[in-house]
Amino acid sequence: MAGTPAQGEINRRVLLVRRPTGIPQPDDFAFDEAPVPPLGDGQFLIRNLYLSVDPAQRGWAADAANYAKPVPLGSVMRALAVGVVVESRHPRFPVGSHAYGWFDWQDFAVAEPSDVLTRFDEPEVALSAYAGVLGINGLTAWLAFHNLGRPARGDTVLVSTAAGAVGSIVGQLAQAAGCRVVGLTGGDDKAELCRSRFGYDVALNYKTGAIEALLADAAPDGLDIFFDNVGGAILDAGLRQMRVGGRVVQCGTASIPSWSPPPEGLRNEREVLTRRLAWSGFVIFDHQPLFGETMGELVAMIRDGTLVYDEDLRRGIESAPEALTDVYSGRNRGKMLIDLGQSVA
Amino acid sequence: MAGTPAQGEINRRVLLVRRPTGIPQPDDFAFDEAPVPPLGDGQFLIRNLYLSVDPAQRGWAADAANYAKPVPLGSVMRALAVGVVVESRHPRFPVGSHAYGWFDWQDFAVAEPSDVLTRFDEPEVALSAYAGVLGINGLTAWLAFHNLGRPARGDTVLVSTAAGAVGSIVGQLAQAAGCRVVGLTGGDDKAELCRSRFGYDVALNYKTGAIEALLADAAPDGLDIFFDNVGGAILDAGLRQMRVGGRVVQCGTASIPSWSPPPEGLRNEREVLTRRLAWSGFVIFDHQPLFGETMGELVAMIRDGTLVYDEDLRRGIESAPEALTDVYSGRNRGKMLIDLGQSVA
Repeated sequence: MAGTPAQGEINRRVLLVRRPTGIPQPDDFAFDEAPVPPLGDGQFLIRNLYLSVDPAQRGWAADAANYAKPVPLGSVMRALAVGVVVESRHPRFPVGSHAYGWFDWQDFAVAEPSDVLTRFDEPEVALSAYAGVLGINGLTAWLAFHNLGRPARGDTVLVSTAAGAVGSIVGQLAQAAGCRVVGLTGGDDKAELCRSRFGYDVALNYKTGAIEALLADAAPDGLDIFFDNVGGAILDAGLRQMRVGGRVVQCGTASIPSWSPPPEGLRNEREVLTRRLAWSGFVIFDHQPLFGETMGELVAMIRDGTLVYDEDLRRGIESAPEALTDVYSGRNRGKMLIDLGQSVA
Repeated sequence: MAGTPAQGEINRRVLLVRRPTGIPQPDDFAFDEAPVPPLGDGQFLIRNLYLSVDPAQRGWAADAANYAKPVPLGSVMRALAVGVVVESRHPRFPVGSHAYGWFDWQDFAVAEPSDVLTRFDEPEVALSAYAGVLGINGLTAWLAFHNLGRPARGDTVLVSTAAGAVGSIVGQLAQAAGCRVVGLTGGDDKAELCRSRFGYDVALNYKTGAIEALLADAAPDGLDIFFDNVGGAILDAGLRQMRVGGRVVQCGTASIPSWSPPPEGLRNEREVLTRRLAWSGFVIFDHQPLFGETMGELVAMIRDGTLVYDEDLRRGIESAPEALTDVYSGRNRGKMLIDLGQSVA
C-alpha cells in the first residue's frame, strides 16, 4: 500500500473545553494527544495539511441553536481542513488523493465520504488554496454573489469586510462582472490593500467617519448589491443607501459579538419595502452540488490572473486557537490557515 | 356627445391642509368646492363613483421621502378611485367607459392616460370591486404572493392583517394554491371572519397572547411564506418562526405609527442568514404591465366563488377623512370605499 502508514503515530488534537459567550478565546480550547484510530470499512484516514480558521467556528462552538449543531464540550473542535489520504478502505478515496472537508483541528481524521466537501487527485493550484479561495470562502463568494446578488454590468456593489477571505474575492468577482465596487474595511492599511491588490474602485475605512455619510459620498446614486458579512450598524447604513430593486446578500453577522440577549437596532422593514429590496441569507453548505463547476470557474480566474488571494499562514496546530481570536479582531491578512508542515513534496 | 356634461357643475374636493405626524386625523383635511375645469387636448373628465381609502395614503400625506412624492399642502388628497368618463378629448377613453386610477378625493377629475391604472368598458363584476379586489389590493395580493412568495402545495403561509383588504385575498389565494394558511389579526371577531369566510385553517387574535408562542403553536413545523403587512413585533415573531429557505414578503409596515425618529427593535439579520430567508419588498406600482392578466385571474376566481371579498362602504365624500383614520384603527370590515352615490344605472 502506498502512502504513509499512520497507525501508531500520535494524533494531536484541539479540544473545545468551554463555550465562548462572545469571541472565542484561547482558554476556550485545550490540547491533547491520542493514538490514531483504526479504520472501519468504507473509511479513509486523512493527514491534515492545512487547517482552516473561519468566523463561522464561533457559531459551531456556541450553545445557541444555529444552522449547525454545537460542538460537544470536550470533543475535537469542528473545522474544515485540506488533507491527503494516507490509508484507505474506500475505493473513491485512494491513498495519495486529496480532500477538503470536516477533518477538524487535529493531525489525523478518520473520514467518510459525507465528511468531504471537495476532492481532487492532484492540485491544479497551490494546495492551501483548496482551503480558502477554492474552499468555502471562494465558493461562498461566487455562489452568493452570482446567484443572490444577480449582478449586471454597471451595477454598484458594496462589500463589507472587503479585504477579508470572502470579501476580497467578491470584490474581484464584481470587477470581473463589470460592476463598480466599493469596499468597507476596518483599517487604512486594509483599504489600501483593497485598492491596490483587489481592484476596488473605492475602499473606505469605516472607522474614519459616519458610515452613512461615507457611503453617500462613495455611491451617490446608491447601491445595487450589498454583500454583507457583518450586520449591525454597517448593515443598517448600507440598507439606507440601496437603490430601488437592490439585492442584499447576508453572508455573515461578524460585527455582532453575541446574540444572547438579542441585540436591538434600527428597524429595517421600511427599507425592505420602500426600496423593494431582495434581502437573502446564504449558507454555503446548502449548495454542495454546485461546488465542482464553481471550483472550475475559480481555478480559471486564478490561472489567468484575474483572481488573486492572500493567506495568513500560521505554523503548527498550537497556533489555532489564537488564530481564531485574531480573525474576529481583524488581525489577519487574508485567509487564516494553520500550516501543519506536512505538505512535503 | 353621449354622457353627462359636467361643465358648470360643482367639484367637491378634500384638501390636505396639515401633514399628519402619525395616523392621519380628520383635522388634517378640509373641504372646498370648485368649478369643474375645462378639458385640454388628450384629456378626459372622470366622474368619481368610488373613492378608495388606503393605508398607503399616510405615506403620501407625510413629509418624509417615500416611494411616492408627498401631496402638496393645500391640494386635493391623492387617492385612487373608480369612475366613469363623462367628457372626453381622448379616443381611447370614450364617454361611458370606466377607469381606475389617480383621480383623488373629489367628485370630478381631469385625467390623462398616465393617471389610469386599469380601464374597462363594461364591468364584469360589481363596479366597486375595481377599486378593491380588482384594484391595488387584489393585484398586490396576487402578484406579491405568487411572484415573491413562490408558493408550493403543502407550504405553510402566515398572513398578517389577515382579514384586511389585501390579507383576506392572500389567505384565499394561499388556500387555492394548496397551502396551509395561518392568519394573524387584531380581534376575535376578525379571527372568526378569517375562519368562516376567508377559509384560513387557523386564525389568531394576536392580542390574546405572546405572538411567538401563538405562532409556535399554530405552525409547529415553521412557516414557508410570511406575507407581512404590518412590520414591528409581529414581523419579528414571524421571522423567528420561518423555516430554512422561507420567503418573507413585505407589503406594508402598518403597525409602525411613525418612522421619525427611526424606531428600534430586534436585530433581524441573523434570522435572514441562518434561516436562508428571501425577504422582499413589494410596491404594486412597479408591476403595471401585469395588471391586465392578473385581473383576469381574479375575475375568474370571483365568478367561480373561490374568491370572496368584503367592502366597508361609507356614503358621501365628507366621510373620507374619518374613514382613513378608521383604517388605521382596524375599525373597517373589508376594503374601505367611499360611495359617491353616482353609480346610477
